Amino acid sequence: MLSIVIADSEIELVPDEIAGHAAIRRKAKRRGKPPAETLLDSNMDHVPMRRLVDGDRRGRPDIAHLCLLVALDSISSREGDLLVYVHTREDVILTFDPGTRLPRVQGRFYGILEKILTSETGTDLIGYDKMNLAGLCLKIAPDITLALTPSGKRSSLAEEMSGKEHVLSIIGGFPRGEFKSPVESLADATISCYPDSLNAWTVLNEVVFSYRNSR
Amino acid sequence: MLSIVIADSEIELVPDEIAGHAAIRRKAKRRGKPPAETLLDSNMDHVPMRRLVDGDRRGRPDIAHLCLLVALDSISSREGDLLVYVHTREDVILTFDPGTRLPRVQGRFYGILEKILTSETGTDLIGYDKMNLAGLCLKIAPDITLALTPSGKRSSLAEEMSGKEHVLSIIGGFPRGEFKSPVESLADATISCYPDSLNAWTVLNEVVFSYRNSR
Repeated sequence: MLSIVIADSEIELVPDEIAGHAAIRRKAKRRGKPPAETLLDSNMDHVPMRRLVDGDRRGRPDIAHLCLLVALDSISSREGDLLVYVHTREDVILTFDPGTRLPRVQGRFYGILEKILTSETGTDLIGYDKMNLAGLCLKIAPDITLALTPSGKRSSLAEEMSGKEHVLSIIGGFPRGEFKSPVESLADATISCYPDSLNAWTVLNEVVFSYRNSR
Repeated sequence: MLSIVIADSEIELVPDEIAGHAAIRRKAKRRGKPPAETLLDSNMDHVPMRRLVDGDRRGRPDIAHLCLLVALDSISSREGDLLVYVHTREDVILTFDPGTRLPRVQGRFYGILEKILTSETGTDLIGYDKMNLAGLCLKIAPDITLALTPSGKRSSLAEEMSGKEHVLSIIGGFPRGEFKSPVESLADATISCYPDSLNAWTVLNEVVFSYRNSR
């Protein structure tokens, strides 16, 4: 079994500090929702986001969306070998049933996230929990935990996974910077799979195919 | 070298038959463009699209977008081993330079396509040609051409690719049905890589990783 956590994902509702900003209010009104029930989206909200701490990395639900589209349709997921979790900067855990058919249109996926985050309740196929990354790792209880980061040790993923029944890989769901969660203390190894920085979905693909090659 | 053509992609400008439809005109007006210069998008245009031949499969630029995001960020592309082409139902060929950094936001990508298809001119990084799939295959001149389709022969991609220097894989850029182009006569083998029908980006991943494994 391969478990993948897309960790410290930059997915959150519009925070209070900027919920009153004119651009945010306009966007919310157009969608018929209170600002605090809409998703922070750097593509739309980059001007008000300048006021936020970490404003240059937040509001990136597109990253997890793309990772999930790739992961949930993969052959490993169809074969029942892959489970995917999204962990957010606010320690929300979203657990995706392998049978989840996500909308490919970004806006529709964001609408689902808004509903889940606002109600703090999952759906039939998407679980919702409040839990930090350490708690999730304990719950998954893998045989080995590998964190993927450009600053890790250059290593072959397939070799690291070899001989391990249940592998957990932690991938960053943010566009730049480092993990916020203490991945180094949670992982058995912190690994880089390429000399250059890669997008999250490319790392995810490397993990999925290395796992298959290591069986 | 691996070349991938996302063939018969359902990417086109709004066709004349439905350019006068109220919903299409409204959408175009909101974007400040004539209807015939906007992209057909099944997500927005599904009602007027009922009038079109093949209306249940057209207007799917999201498929090529996702394939390109996955392909252009892949390690194979970064290493200079992968070239990606998009062929459309109207025999337009878009050639993507491996250095192209595509917008992840769907609407922005669609805006680029609208500009290219309307002007019939490429950009610095995206080439535009009028050519059918047969012409493109001749131009690419690979050592072997493999077409991927659920109705093909079940086979190992890595084995088919083994020993071939330049491999061309043809993947369908449409959501259902069969290729419109005569892929069976263009390909050396028509192959299925999984017993079930897969999304285009999953097939693309299988092709990319099988190619790497076959080296």
